[in-house]
Amino acid sequence: MKEKFRDSTLSPKERAKDLLGRLTLREKVGQVNQKLYGFNSYTRDGENIELADSFRQEVEKWGGLGVLYGLYRADPWANKDYSTGLTGTAAIRAYNLAQKYVLDHSRFQIPMLMSTECPHGHQALDGYLLPVNLAMGAAWNPALVEDGFTVVGRQIREMGVDLALISMLDVLRDPRWGRSEECYGEDPYLCAQNAAAAIRGCVRAGVDAVSKHFCAQGETTGGVNASAARIGERELREIHLPPMAAAAKAGAKGVMAAYNEIDGIPCHANAWLLQDILRGEMGFDGIVMADGVAIDRLNMLTGGDFAASGAAALNAGVDVSLWDDGFTRLEEAVQRGLVPEERLDRAVLRVLEMKFECGLFEHPYLEEKPLTVFTAENAPQSLEIARQSAVLLKNDGVLPLDPEKPLSIAVIGPNADAIYQQLGDYTPPLRDGEGITLLDGVHRAFPNAKVCFAPGCTICGEETDRIGEAAALAAESDLVILALGGSSSRFAGAEFDTNGAAVVGAKLQMDCGEGVDTASLELPGAQNALAEAVFAAGKPVVSVMISGRPYAIPEIAEKTDALLWAFYPGPWGGQAIAEVLSGAVNPSGCLPVSIPRTAGQLPVYYNARASYDVLRYRDLGNTPLFPFGFGLHYTQFMVENVESAESIGVGALRGGETHTVRCTVHNTGCRAGHAVLQLFIQGMSGSIVRRVRELKGFEKLWLEPGERKSVELQLGLDELGVWNRAMQFDAEPGTVRLCLAESGRPVWNGEMKITAE
Amino acid sequence: MKEKFRDSTLSPKERAKDLLGRLTLREKVGQVNQKLYGFNSYTRDGENIELADSFRQEVEKWGGLGVLYGLYRADPWANKDYSTGLTGTAAIRAYNLAQKYVLDHSRFQIPMLMSTECPHGHQALDGYLLPVNLAMGAAWNPALVEDGFTVVGRQIREMGVDLALISMLDVLRDPRWGRSEECYGEDPYLCAQNAAAAIRGCVRAGVDAVSKHFCAQGETTGGVNASAARIGERELREIHLPPMAAAAKAGAKGVMAAYNEIDGIPCHANAWLLQDILRGEMGFDGIVMADGVAIDRLNMLTGGDFAASGAAALNAGVDVSLWDDGFTRLEEAVQRGLVPEERLDRAVLRVLEMKFECGLFEHPYLEEKPLTVFTAENAPQSLEIARQSAVLLKNDGVLPLDPEKPLSIAVIGPNADAIYQQLGDYTPPLRDGEGITLLDGVHRAFPNAKVCFAPGCTICGEETDRIGEAAALAAESDLVILALGGSSSRFAGAEFDTNGAAVVGAKLQMDCGEGVDTASLELPGAQNALAEAVFAAGKPVVSVMISGRPYAIPEIAEKTDALLWAFYPGPWGGQAIAEVLSGAVNPSGCLPVSIPRTAGQLPVYYNARASYDVLRYRDLGNTPLFPFGFGLHYTQFMVENVESAESIGVGALRGGETHTVRCTVHNTGCRAGHAVLQLFIQGMSGSIVRRVRELKGFEKLWLEPGERKSVELQLGLDELGVWNRAMQFDAEPGTVRLCLAESGRPVWNGEMKITAE
Repeated sequence: MKEKFRDSTLSPKERAKDLLGRLTLREKVGQVNQKLYGFNSYTRDGENIELADSFRQEVEKWGGLGVLYGLYRADPWANKDYSTGLTGTAAIRAYNLAQKYVLDHSRFQIPMLMSTECPHGHQALDGYLLPVNLAMGAAWNPALVEDGFTVVGRQIREMGVDLALISMLDVLRDPRWGRSEECYGEDPYLCAQNAAAAIRGCVRAGVDAVSKHFCAQGETTGGVNASAARIGERELREIHLPPMAAAAKAGAKGVMAAYNEIDGIPCHANAWLLQDILRGEMGFDGIVMADGVAIDRLNMLTGGDFAASGAAALNAGVDVSLWDDGFTRLEEAVQRGLVPEERLDRAVLRVLEMKFECGLFEHPYLEEKPLTVFTAENAPQSLEIARQSAVLLKNDGVLPLDPEKPLSIAVIGPNADAIYQQLGDYTPPLRDGEGITLLDGVHRAFPNAKVCFAPGCTICGEETDRIGEAAALAAESDLVILALGGSSSRFAGAEFDTNGAAVVGAKLQMDCGEGVDTASLELPGAQNALAEAVFAAGKPVVSVMISGRPYAIPEIAEKTDALLWAFYPGPWGGQAIAEVLSGAVNPSGCLPVSIPRTAGQLPVYYNARASYDVLRYRDLGNTPLFPFGFGLHYTQFMVENVESAESIGVGALRGGETHTVRCTVHNTGCRAGHAVLQLFIQGMSGSIVRRVRELKGFEKLWLEPGERKSVELQLGLDELGVWNRAMQFDAEPGTVRLCLAESGRPVWNGEMKITAE
Repeated sequence: MKEKFRDSTLSPKERAKDLLGRLTLREKVGQVNQKLYGFNSYTRDGENIELADSFRQEVEKWGGLGVLYGLYRADPWANKDYSTGLTGTAAIRAYNLAQKYVLDHSRFQIPMLMSTECPHGHQALDGYLLPVNLAMGAAWNPALVEDGFTVVGRQIREMGVDLALISMLDVLRDPRWGRSEECYGEDPYLCAQNAAAAIRGCVRAGVDAVSKHFCAQGETTGGVNASAARIGERELREIHLPPMAAAAKAGAKGVMAAYNEIDGIPCHANAWLLQDILRGEMGFDGIVMADGVAIDRLNMLTGGDFAASGAAALNAGVDVSLWDDGFTRLEEAVQRGLVPEERLDRAVLRVLEMKFECGLFEHPYLEEKPLTVFTAENAPQSLEIARQSAVLLKNDGVLPLDPEKPLSIAVIGPNADAIYQQLGDYTPPLRDGEGITLLDGVHRAFPNAKVCFAPGCTICGEETDRIGEAAALAAESDLVILALGGSSSRFAGAEFDTNGAAVVGAKLQMDCGEGVDTASLELPGAQNALAEAVFAAGKPVVSVMISGRPYAIPEIAEKTDALLWAFYPGPWGGQAIAEVLSGAVNPSGCLPVSIPRTAGQLPVYYNARASYDVLRYRDLGNTPLFPFGFGLHYTQFMVENVESAESIGVGALRGGETHTVRCTVHNTGCRAGHAVLQLFIQGMSGSIVRRVRELKGFEKLWLEPGERKSVELQLGLDELGVWNRAMQFDAEPGTVRLCLAESGRPVWNGEMKITAE
């Protein structure tokens, strides 16, 4: 008689339960392990692909394999490129080879799951790349993010990936952090909307996402990666939980625990976080994955006892490991009584259930057919995000540049013609000639112009010997496009930690990305000297910042004639930026993060509590250099006919009713473009200290010249409630100030009352 | 029949209870109010003193007076000096006049209590001043602090003050904060030891202290005064509660709530903090006082309803107001049902009980006799603290300077001859010629030297025109003493907020002190330019920093031949510093706070959790400029014969047993001096993430050349326990690393085990 778990008419839950009952302790432990670097699990020699001994041994050791990480991963750490890595049908053959080996060595032919890194696109050869999260946040357009991740999801689905590991939960509270680029911004609402969009994109593509990182990883100490989040529970709930709550609601099937600890408790050992909040409050029912070797970091609790660290993570609610030794020692942990076998069973059940849900038992292999190669032509989503995410912060009138004019343009700066410096961290190698740098884009967008280029300096190098050449070029041109910023490119001699993060050291040519944190927010290397020399040439200067974090650039902001900020805009970002410069695209990005004046001014996020007399220093202005939400356009938008009721009752809010703010947005300028309508609130009383402003709604809308569109924004309990004194989420009676802004410029102030009934 | 409360044979509690029963609601509210600025409650014209109308009206309004703040306060805010303020018998007459008016207008002749500001000595004319708290922390000698506050206490006791308001609870976690100087340092243990010492000093003098501020005020956001403490409960308990616990244990009879909120809850409205923790856990049974106008700041919770704000504070556990309107509206609050009258009664009882305990009913008046004037001669404690708090951070061999040599010494810098810039914030005017500046001290300590002086620049001014003169003086001298740093002096045109804090504005010549926070940690004004010019003169330079906070001075630290740091050392600080320079005093101060390299490196405290890969930045060394605990001497100390048992049981610790570390300290050098033995621990496992190092014991001891002394340091449950996962304080089994250091230099590393039983 066929085993029950093989009966595909039964539910995944029933099948998983049946199968679990047949497994040995060792086989169970195998199912929750994700020990291997997938990219080291094979070798490719031309068309020939062979499984590595390490892979075979791991499968044989456990009588199967739980999850395989990163079979397709390609980057300098993985040390795979187009000659040694997996593309096209080779990728499919490798997948099938590995899967077959797993099935053949599993008593019950349990297939493996496959996970892959895609913070902003698939970190694999021919991986379709989006702008980094911070750029997506700057677009203020979650629908676009959803579209982008739908493409990403389709690509990885074709390659048999079950779990896409996607950064979407971190909220950027300290820009010294090298992973700032992986955040959608500093605001919980903006982040939550985009996290939900990313999940929806994956769901549309039929792939599961592992949302990362849970939780509060953006609340670093001093901006140092994976450091302590020293915050209290209310700050955690208000700022850091909303993205995960939104992701869970949107259908996230996986979540990755964060490296950091919160007030002394590591997330990987935090049952309150991983169970009470995640499952109990948020209703999440997928799998919890560890971050890379993070379980072994629990050795700081267990005094170096790996088995105890594995047990601590399993007890807390981690289901699946990543590269660590801790989870490989779970047999021992069970035998030593460090964790009840029921806890292991619970994790194994979740893994098996997901395998059944994915249909892997019925269809473990991929069909050997050509993979779709996604380009700017067949998948314009990445380019469109890049266009909508460019933030115009200053324009003395020089922009847009007339593409018809036979201008002599000097394109200067280390980020003008460096494709990898547009991409951000976690990026695969591109094919030769792939991508469009800013210099490429300028050439295309200004066909009548004479375009000359001088890098002036490198991103991080202190050498100033090429600055003179750049200044001379500036002096003999009509206009300068000065491309400065940072780099998260691993393609310039970075070295790596056991978890793939870059190691800070002498050879490092990155100033941003995982593991690359900075104490200063000034532009690295000789870039300030370059800018000074260029300004001294006396020509109009359009400064373009291409970066993964805010930089403090008060002098440049003052001296430049125009300033455009493009958080790493992806492979086609150069085209997008050039189109904004030429006016082909009307800029519509808004800052997803405040730009500070100095690192000494941190923290600078806009939504401090009202008890904080924001940035009141003896030696510095009491504003950021540029505020959250801000962006300029080439047209003007008016907001008219605002309607907002006087009050709503607490009971009505609890019952699901909403307070509606209606208005009309009117493009009064001469160019079509996107307006970004933002709704901020400020609670004026209650049991807790409220924040000076809180974003609670926004909408991006396209308007032809002269066009009017009406907009409705809803404030319900989710938006108007607070984590009150008793740490319950509820509405409280009182006055709430409302502010409508268009791209950061307040256009209407009002107020409403929440009444006691 | 005499009323029961007049019977002095009964206990204060019985008497207070009886008296309470006789009071009207209005009289009760009067007892908990401290609305007046005492310094505005009188006018003095020559020998004639009259009570101000505002005082009379306030007394008449309430039929008495609860507490009078700052009758003697003298400073630019109070606008009192030696011609208009109170000294000698005039002070006594003013006191008696005010007290008589209160008694005469109280149905039951209830005397007033009197409170006075004395963060580091009495802020009154002829007030005896100590070095600021940060200097006291640098002395690592709580016994000296106790002695110092005994003098302070004797002085204010003579003047009829009942409650000395003393900063002692704030822990310095961000040196951008202008009140850094009011902290004993960055470490909870060091702070707690000194807080207890300050209380013991007051108790010895027979005066009650109001410990301030409770709690976590040093945990500012961005270093901005009174801003949000965003921390979690464990951080609060580990870092910020210990000073108050120690103060309560030492006999503190008052505590002042802090301006800040903690994770969204203002301290003034935090019943958990002011009742459960303060009274329940710490056993405090005195009065809780509000900070200045802080109750009115609760309007951010009550939507501007002052009565509700008063009620919120009273409900939370505040007993006595300070200058606010909120508590003046408590009749209305009771009538509106915002607070039960029983809550008011509880506060009134505490106030009355204190009045009975102070003996005020029996002896409400002061005897009219001359007040003691405390000087460096009859009260050398302040000078001795200054001597022991000077921290020698670098010495390339230039120090000590031979006082016999006929050297030509250039004394240069804005802090060389400015007495108020030695004193810190909250300082009264001195009499002409009082105090010893560094320049004075050098003249005295080097009688054979030719001493010339050039200020070079001011503290905050950007003018550089006097730098040349200073550089020329340096060039023609044998040696330079370069006195740089900051100023918290209110005596140079500061303006003030309603709570007496300095207001940041154009005229401000302070760069430190309450309300004066900075984004940068660089030396203010033109001081770096001055230093550069002085170094360029090529002569040996001894740099002396006189300041109320750390400054980031990496270039100066590198170029100077010696560096001595004196946190505002008080009126006789110039003598103390000069004695250290001449070798008359062997330096023994150790840093109570880490000195950062830049503000971008913050936070830099030494005791981060072990999850924080401390200060690991791409662009900066991973250490502070100078570490916590560090200081050099003119002699060498060896630590010998260390004894430390292998283990102690959890049960033994719970039962009160201690683990003893014994050693011998040996002065192997040629000069007598103080050694500072420090014991640090590092827990290697447990239910929470431990800190990289934690100070758990220290002792300062005097050793003649060649002398040996044995020291015992005890580790009990207080030192070895943790706030565990369940937020209970307990010992946990595991390995604990031990490190003995002498003035910051590790001299012995060991470990011990805490066993399960």
